[in-house]
Amino acid sequence: MTDTTAPSLASLAVPECHIRETGLLPEHVTAFRRQGVLAVRGLLSPAELESVQEAAAGLIDDAWRTRSMHDTIWTLEPHEPDAAPVRIEYVMDKSPVMARLAGHPLLLRAMETLVGPNFIPTWDSMVFKTTAGAPRLAWHRDGQMYSDAVAVTGGGRVIDVGIYLDHAPEDNCVWAIPQSNYWEDEQVTETADRLNATEWDATGAVPAVMRPGDALLHNILTLHGAPAVVGKQRRVVYYEYRPGEVERQLGPHVPEYVGLKQQVLRACLEQRAASGEHRDEEPFEYRPVEQYRLWDESPAISGLRFPHEEYWRW
Amino acid sequence: MTDTTAPSLASLAVPECHIRETGLLPEHVTAFRRQGVLAVRGLLSPAELESVQEAAAGLIDDAWRTRSMHDTIWTLEPHEPDAAPVRIEYVMDKSPVMARLAGHPLLLRAMETLVGPNFIPTWDSMVFKTTAGAPRLAWHRDGQMYSDAVAVTGGGRVIDVGIYLDHAPEDNCVWAIPQSNYWEDEQVTETADRLNATEWDATGAVPAVMRPGDALLHNILTLHGAPAVVGKQRRVVYYEYRPGEVERQLGPHVPEYVGLKQQVLRACLEQRAASGEHRDEEPFEYRPVEQYRLWDESPAISGLRFPHEEYWRW
Ligand code: NI
Ligand code: NI
Repeated sequence: MTDTTAPSLASLAVPECHIRETGLLPEHVTAFRRQGVLAVRGLLSPAELESVQEAAAGLIDDAWRTRSMHDTIWTLEPHEPDAAPVRIEYVMDKSPVMARLAGHPLLLRAMETLVGPNFIPTWDSMVFKTTAGAPRLAWHRDGQMYSDAVAVTGGGRVIDVGIYLDHAPEDNCVWAIPQSNYWEDEQVTETADRLNATEWDATGAVPAVMRPGDALLHNILTLHGAPAVVGKQRRVVYYEYRPGEVERQLGPHVPEYVGLKQQVLRACLEQRAASGEHRDEEPFEYRPVEQYRLWDESPAISGLRFPHEEYWRW
Repeated sequence: MTDTTAPSLASLAVPECHIRETGLLPEHVTAFRRQGVLAVRGLLSPAELESVQEAAAGLIDDAWRTRSMHDTIWTLEPHEPDAAPVRIEYVMDKSPVMARLAGHPLLLRAMETLVGPNFIPTWDSMVFKTTAGAPRLAWHRDGQMYSDAVAVTGGGRVIDVGIYLDHAPEDNCVWAIPQSNYWEDEQVTETADRLNATEWDATGAVPAVMRPGDALLHNILTLHGAPAVVGKQRRVVYYEYRPGEVERQLGPHVPEYVGLKQQVLRACLEQRAASGEHRDEEPFEYRPVEQYRLWDESPAISGLRFPHEEYWRW
């Protein structure tokens, strides 16, 4: 047997796909599955980026103005003087621009290739750091909800897509540990505990430096974290996708959730197609298999907000 | 909501990839995941086809000559006058040509893209119909070994590759039911029972017409069968692939099997590289993630034959 040298540090950097130049190629698919992260450069056109930035600013302004806790997470109780909003849930329902963004053809084609033809949208939110600053994001995996999680989704079929509206330079970006999507639970726990024991330790991790309009894909099993930051704005829209067949057999939501969220996806596609702004693009065509064309079997929807806690299986 | 019409029959034909012209594209990945089958046209060069045909003929001649049951399945007890051999196991170990075939770069690149970077070879065999004829192959799924099988591999991460050495025309080919890889157990059982109740019923199925040198990929969950045939020779080399992380967490073999079969794969790659016949091709580079580079952790191998029954987990 020839000796095979260990991968160099360089090979562990976040792999990149310049999606408007090449599309998502087989080598991007494998790089994402291998490393657990993929930077999709230039996903949004300048015009769409501007429109999403404006919508995001509107949602954040609403939070400050209303000081509501409805679908909004604050650093402290909203009435406290230093409180700041940091996360807003169900953004597709709150902003037609966010709904149209969820119909983005390049994004959805990438999800079809990576997640499979029956993919459905699950979580949608916006996470932001205001100039008030933000504490570190401790090292974590996003979801550990399946037993034998590495077998089910180590290869990257449950994907969190972060669409960046602002620069995320090295001192204000997410860091990820490549290939940790394949780690067993004990290694994840041991590593997270060790790294989280000091204020910021990124041993073994690589920075996901992002520009406005880029998207960072991460496998929900990839260990990631972010350093504390002061005085910088950074807004990220997060859309998560899962295979319909995994959701239906294993959850975490009830089986009916699949047909409901397929209706959400189809509504987003319709709203995008109906808007004059995206006239020149080839729309994404959603084509799950017969068995998973469930939108007509579930009650018609009247909005795009499906609170997770109303649909948990357990 | 706009109405979406049901897929036409045409859209349910076996999708095709002319691999030497286009490589395996994202649309082939999605077509395979959706339909559960994919015809890879012209995988073997004429020279390699000829060499594999010769090796296959040699293995079949050996079976007839020795009338041995070692790794060989016969239609009747081998000493009976009408007995014919129909299947030989562990062909990589029995023929250097079959071992080199298992190192085929286009095949392995396709497996890396479809199964993931940690793919391992599992089963290897040759199935053949001699001019003595063959009974029908009843409708079946190849493997039902995982609970929640559709969630684990409905999308096609466990793949059976049939490399055709002879023509398989419509009256002597495998038929498959597209998208049955996503069916629940009850629908599979009900359909197989119904179709198997008469001698040959292919309702809902499509023929996988193959030419020598083509490969048929099928998801192990896809329902398939074949009509009885008389007087035609048809030889198919079957190589199966699984994700290392699925094998290691869920079986069916013991965890140590992963490192052993990775050694088999690496040996096949070395043998192919060492042979003068494939001098002009770019070899496949096997690059699983750190966690799944297990070849050095398992005992060195002295052959390519790892009998399944010695490695079952249960
Ligand atoms: Ni996270
Ligand atoms: Ni079979």
